[in-house]
Amino acid sequence: MFYLVGLGLFDEKDMSLKALECLKNVDKIYAEFFTSRLFGSSFEAIEELIGNEIEVLVRNEVEEESKFLDEAKDSNVALITGGDPLIATTHSEFLVECSQKGIDYEVIHGSSILSSAPAISGLQAYKFGKVTTIPFPDYNFYPKSPYFAIEENLKMDMHTLVLLDIQAHKNRYMTVNEGLEYLMSINESLDEEGLINEDTLAMGIARVGSKDCIVKAGKISELIDYDFGGPLHCIIIPSKLHIVEAEYLVEIAGADPEILEEI
Amino acid sequence: MFYLVGLGLFDEKDMSLKALECLKNVDKIYAEFFTSRLFGSSFEAIEELIGNEIEVLVRNEVEEESKFLDEAKDSNVALITGGDPLIATTHSEFLVECSQKGIDYEVIHGSSILSSAPAISGLQAYKFGKVTTIPFPDYNFYPKSPYFAIEENLKMDMHTLVLLDIQAHKNRYMTVNEGLEYLMSINESLDEEGLINEDTLAMGIARVGSKDCIVKAGKISELIDYDFGGPLHCIIIPSKLHIVEAEYLVEIAGADPEILEEI
Repeated sequence: MFYLVGLGLFDEKDMSLKALECLKNVDKIYAEFFTSRLFGSSFEAIEELIGNEIEVLVRNEVEEESKFLDEAKDSNVALITGGDPLIATTHSEFLVECSQKGIDYEVIHGSSILSSAPAISGLQAYKFGKVTTIPFPDYNFYPKSPYFAIEENLKMDMHTLVLLDIQAHKNRYMTVNEGLEYLMSINESLDEEGLINEDTLAMGIARVGSKDCIVKAGKISELIDYDFGGPLHCIIIPSKLHIVEAEYLVEIAGADPEILEEI
Repeated sequence: MFYLVGLGLFDEKDMSLKALECLKNVDKIYAEFFTSRLFGSSFEAIEELIGNEIEVLVRNEVEEESKFLDEAKDSNVALITGGDPLIATTHSEFLVECSQKGIDYEVIHGSSILSSAPAISGLQAYKFGKVTTIPFPDYNFYPKSPYFAIEENLKMDMHTLVLLDIQAHKNRYMTVNEGLEYLMSINESLDEEGLINEDTLAMGIARVGSKDCIVKAGKISELIDYDFGGPLHCIIIPSKLHIVEAEYLVEIAGADPEILEEI
């Protein structure tokens, strides 16, 4: 039996009782922590909680070998990951492989940034458009697509959740500041001025699921130098606001009360 | 102190360890189960697990009175709900009220249909457009907006998560079948033929988070009479498929292998 288990948002106590029960009882636990990981926790803390050892896999062990699936033919094997375990496409392929090889499987869901960030933003979940991700730029790699994705959503009065790149193998996690700088540098490079500039309302969100979660709304010029602390971060670019959303942004996320007058 | 606690997807064991710890220790627990509830569980099962009593609120006690916030001034009060606790806008207003009244608060997130349904569908999360909800039709109330929302997404090659109406006070939970019938009846009422018809590929998803979760893909004509069993249900209308998505739909969700040839 193969269990695909999501540990949820931030630390080991974000896992569900179902996840805990499963991990206490399986024969072997592997971890995939390069597409997401728990920042408020450590392998040791998780191991102590579940009373079972964890073997952390490197990328090619997950993507090319998947030996854990072969072991799941004759024993109970769990693969754990942060957030919801099926958000990364790689993981959905494991279920396909299980099905093809006749291995039973079960998915244990976890809380995910894809629902929790919109939730804690105070914006209405049904007004979010397509999600986008800002990558770490590289030589010859500085795509404008995240900027245009936000613009497209704004044109249709939809909010955008902007995820920020994770390069776990280099211990690099993009900050709200780096993400906003990326967007501003795209804006400067455009021939015609785009919809997202220093006066655009944005939200920076850090460490959702933790007690010191930060949710801060303001103009990009105000957030771009703000210290959001440790990872993980994400950005939300709100579209046209409903009064209830605006009140939340002012009261909970520290936005300038003048946004209430613009509604 | 006010705790807003999400119980997650399906039964009492979907709650996180954080939620359990909180609910074991607070002075008073209220439940709001009209915007969502746990189908695999009962108040009694939750009470037994947490060793604490729960008072279930009716709608106006939540929306108009919010006495639980006044109690939170001098004691530790939790409000529990299914899924993630901030997805319903009503709940974000409680945090605003707490902030205005100087009451400390903490949010404990839970697994949500908004991330778990896209996850278990095997479709890529970043290819989902705006979510829509099909309401129970009523006298003079049969909005076409859900149909058009799906069409808009399809035109932009985006998948759509379609939530189905909950009328908990009447114990009515819309099924995949009713949802698809709704869409087909809108299609028939249009002057020009729309993009969604009996041959459109759809997915019916039931009881995400439970062991007997159903994930089934097929033409609307094939799913419209299929028995998905008990609630909660939702629908996904996939847009253009990537080969990895199509393989999942065939292998895991029972779609006709001919969809692989169309890619």
